[in-house]
Amino acid sequence: MSTLAAAVAAGHEGNLARALTVLEKGGVDAIALRRTLLEHTGRAMVVGVTGPPGAGKSSLIGALIGALRNEGKRVAVLAVDPSSPLSGGAVLGDRTRMGEHTLDPGVFIRSVSSRGQSGGLSRAVPALIDALDAAGWDVVLLETVGSGQSDVDIAEYADVAVLVSVPGLGDDVQAIKAGMLEVADILVVNKSDLPGAARTARQLEQMLSLRSSDSVHPPVIRTSVPDASGIDSLVSELGRTARAGGRLRRLRKEIVREAESAFALRLSKDLVDRACRSVLDEGREISVVALELAAR
Amino acid sequence: MSTLAAAVAAGHEGNLARALTVLEKGGVDAIALRRTLLEHTGRAMVVGVTGPPGAGKSSLIGALIGALRNEGKRVAVLAVDPSSPLSGGAVLGDRTRMGEHTLDPGVFIRSVSSRGQSGGLSRAVPALIDALDAAGWDVVLLETVGSGQSDVDIAEYADVAVLVSVPGLGDDVQAIKAGMLEVADILVVNKSDLPGAARTARQLEQMLSLRSSDSVHPPVIRTSVPDASGIDSLVSELGRTARAGGRLRRLRKEIVREAESAFALRLSKDLVDRACRSVLDEGREISVVALELAAR
Repeated sequence: MSTLAAAVAAGHEGNLARALTVLEKGGVDAIALRRTLLEHTGRAMVVGVTGPPGAGKSSLIGALIGALRNEGKRVAVLAVDPSSPLSGGAVLGDRTRMGEHTLDPGVFIRSVSSRGQSGGLSRAVPALIDALDAAGWDVVLLETVGSGQSDVDIAEYADVAVLVSVPGLGDDVQAIKAGMLEVADILVVNKSDLPGAARTARQLEQMLSLRSSDSVHPPVIRTSVPDASGIDSLVSELGRTARAGGRLRRLRKEIVREAESAFALRLSKDLVDRACRSVLDEGREISVVALELAAR
Repeated sequence: MSTLAAAVAAGHEGNLARALTVLEKGGVDAIALRRTLLEHTGRAMVVGVTGPPGAGKSSLIGALIGALRNEGKRVAVLAVDPSSPLSGGAVLGDRTRMGEHTLDPGVFIRSVSSRGQSGGLSRAVPALIDALDAAGWDVVLLETVGSGQSDVDIAEYADVAVLVSVPGLGDDVQAIKAGMLEVADILVVNKSDLPGAARTARQLEQMLSLRSSDSVHPPVIRTSVPDASGIDSLVSELGRTARAGGRLRRLRKEIVREAESAFALRLSKDLVDRACRSVLDEGREISVVALELAAR
């Protein structure tokens, strides 16, 4: 596995694809590979792009790739959104439909299946990011569909989190969860050639000022992929906003998440059943019973 | 608080609303109230209704309410989907828009804010379900937007979980996460008066048979609210499919969740940082380090 890791770090793309498959599968090989890959990480900028289906995330990512390529950056995409044309392949067996960029050797696209994963992003995501980082990709775009847990994940995995919205998608509220606004570093109103874009941008600004007591809000950027407008502003905002220390932050999150799972596995059914009975039969408090379980 | 609980159990609706507010707020009053309410629970059928924005969940719920009311059932709705017109009030301050049923004393609608909640359903949901159960509502409809964690939550909180889909919503994949298919007890193709409904139903059947080795799959039911078709089938399927023991299952889940949180709070930043350093500097394995944290 350390040979594979070395090949990945040397930039061999076939080996990268193979490494990603190993990491997604998990198990002993993934653990060994990961350990060696970690030595080569720490350079990539990880950009999370989240938003509801229909917000045009994939087209926006296509435009972002173009703009980043013009700056000479090598761009990898991890598509974790099952509704995305990019990750469609992960669900129905059809590979990516990312037309113009598929032949560019400076672009790498990988769809990540969320099969069998309950809650938030696939557990493999931090490992996949590390592999792309080790392989020397300058920017990793992480595309996910907006939902409570994935948003929080995105905010912790990414160096900068972009929430994509769109005019006239369903109701005023636009399927934007309160939590999404709180973790986003940049808000985008995509398809802003459509009527209602100004109104949507105003609503977002308003929600931001209602939500936070800070005087500084994340910027709201209007983009249109067909008009190629707003894309350059978005790219420069990414560079301006990205936080440092991403590698450590991702690792922290992953360790806490693994530790929580390991903890939950240590709670036997019997133990939890007894806790339930003590709540129902003895009128004990749920929080106290839970604390006792945590302190075991 | 035990006086309030008694008033709730006696069916006073104003007191129920007040009790739900207390429970949503949390704190000492919520704990005391919850304890007394729990003594009166165990009768309601809890139906989870999940699916992407635009699938027509709210109209379908309106139709379900009508059908359940015809059977003499008293129906409460907890709307946790921030994109739902039902829960719109929780986000933008405008109360529910549930036209025909708002004057029916046999219908109770409450929107649940997911504000500040990261990941999955609001923590207060099991307590709110208990309050509605204690207040004697026969059916509790829990409306959420489909996302990884909320789906898993739904499957554990609800006695029967319904996944609502719709023809022609975006791409073939329909923003349906793999996880959603696995936890749903009933699949609905809503708006099946629209072209493509048969195709969508076939795709779902196909995904179900690819996903599972079981020969028995959840039923796929086609509904149309304007044509009032499929609603009665759905109602009888709900009764047929609902699992028993919901109260205990919800409590189990809540206790495990609280215990996980309590455990994560016990992990100091310093401890996690040391674990990170031992991975990065000493090449230790993440899973081993996590296990050590869990075993402390």
